[in-house]
Amino acid sequence: MDRGLALAFGFGKMAFPSCGVDSVAGVAENRFMPTLYHAAGSRSCRVRWILEELGIAYQLETLSFGDGSMRTPEYLAKNPMGRVPSFDDDGVIFFESGAILEYILEKWGEGRLAPTAATPERALYLQWFFWSEATLLPPLGEIVRHAFLLPKEKRIPAVVIDARKQLDQAFQMLDDALSGREYLVGKSLSAADIMAGYSCRLARMTGQLDAGFENVAAYLDRLSARPAFQIAFSS
Amino acid sequence: MDRGLALAFGFGKMAFPSCGVDSVAGVAENRFMPTLYHAAGSRSCRVRWILEELGIAYQLETLSFGDGSMRTPEYLAKNPMGRVPSFDDDGVIFFESGAILEYILEKWGEGRLAPTAATPERALYLQWFFWSEATLLPPLGEIVRHAFLLPKEKRIPAVVIDARKQLDQAFQMLDDALSGREYLVGKSLSAADIMAGYSCRLARMTGQLDAGFENVAAYLDRLSARPAFQIAFSS
Repeated sequence: MDRGLALAFGFGKMAFPSCGVDSVAGVAENRFMPTLYHAAGSRSCRVRWILEELGIAYQLETLSFGDGSMRTPEYLAKNPMGRVPSFDDDGVIFFESGAILEYILEKWGEGRLAPTAATPERALYLQWFFWSEATLLPPLGEIVRHAFLLPKEKRIPAVVIDARKQLDQAFQMLDDALSGREYLVGKSLSAADIMAGYSCRLARMTGQLDAGFENVAAYLDRLSARPAFQIAFSS
Repeated sequence: MDRGLALAFGFGKMAFPSCGVDSVAGVAENRFMPTLYHAAGSRSCRVRWILEELGIAYQLETLSFGDGSMRTPEYLAKNPMGRVPSFDDDGVIFFESGAILEYILEKWGEGRLAPTAATPERALYLQWFFWSEATLLPPLGEIVRHAFLLPKEKRIPAVVIDARKQLDQAFQMLDDALSGREYLVGKSLSAADIMAGYSCRLARMTGQLDAGFENVAAYLDRLSARPAFQIAFSS
């Protein structure tokens, strides 16, 4: 039974409590499925999102920040820095969300969600794919840490102010690039939008996406309407 | 005349002063060459390094931090955030060092410097490729800004202390991974080493690569001995 059929017949995911495994119909046939180590709201949502867009069956192993589940010896053997996502493809265990997305596209993408190599579209696709993590996310990460995550006595307001300048510069660039466009590259969703969309959603969730960036806001609205996005960010 | 021959006969690069163009022998034949927008010590060194490793003829357009050359309208049209590297492949102009490396490998790599898609080695290669930018470089970047680049009155010592903890955790992971290995993936240099090597060199140059990480130090020594590395970081 393929995954689309399975879902149509109600054999969808059966969610278990924290640290449990979500199963999809493939299990019943002993068909191999990769495992995504995931935490709600983290970069692992990018991986879940692309798996859902591509209709790839997977197991979801849900970890939580703060409950120690990322610090067990078993998990640290998979990801020595104790972060998510990690990905296990039949014993090939690795991490970094951008790396996992590229691996998935190379192995199961069949040309979907990415332009052909060595084309002008491919150059822009790669640019936005990397930019979303390497340029957009670091200042946002600093804001999230110093405005929300760190204990209050360790937060440094000057870091937030400094990072906001960098973040606003990045969002201005993104807003300009999205003028008159539905997606970052070409006329349909690509994995660059999945990379960027995660970063934009995190900004909105933490109150860092200003009203001034209306193209970014409309873009995020469009991405948020996709069923795969909604599943990726559902838990 | 191919590039190797050109160099053998002494038709190497003719360096011009700041903002000038380095030419290689291909120019004389009107053969198209891509242009790398470069600044000494910046991430553009990664691009120069891989071009040198692959023996690809290129033009080098050298910009400088602080002299306004990255803020001219002409350059901002190529790179709206006013950073380097940017890359111009026959009018396809884009940026982000990781994106440029991938593009170069896809277009001219002929299988060199990267494992085959959908293999276990490819997963690890992609992991380290992204990790070097997304996990290793952000805390190092914060240290460089708050210990060196910002005006003294804007530097925040607490940021440096906090970033050092994250950087040390990352270097510990890298040091463990390099135990008994010459390169990050497989038995020869890959583009993941070029991504990581840049980050390690920046750490050493700024006094942030501690004596405790001996595998990392020996790895950086090995990379530094390569002629392509030496050209990439020569100016």
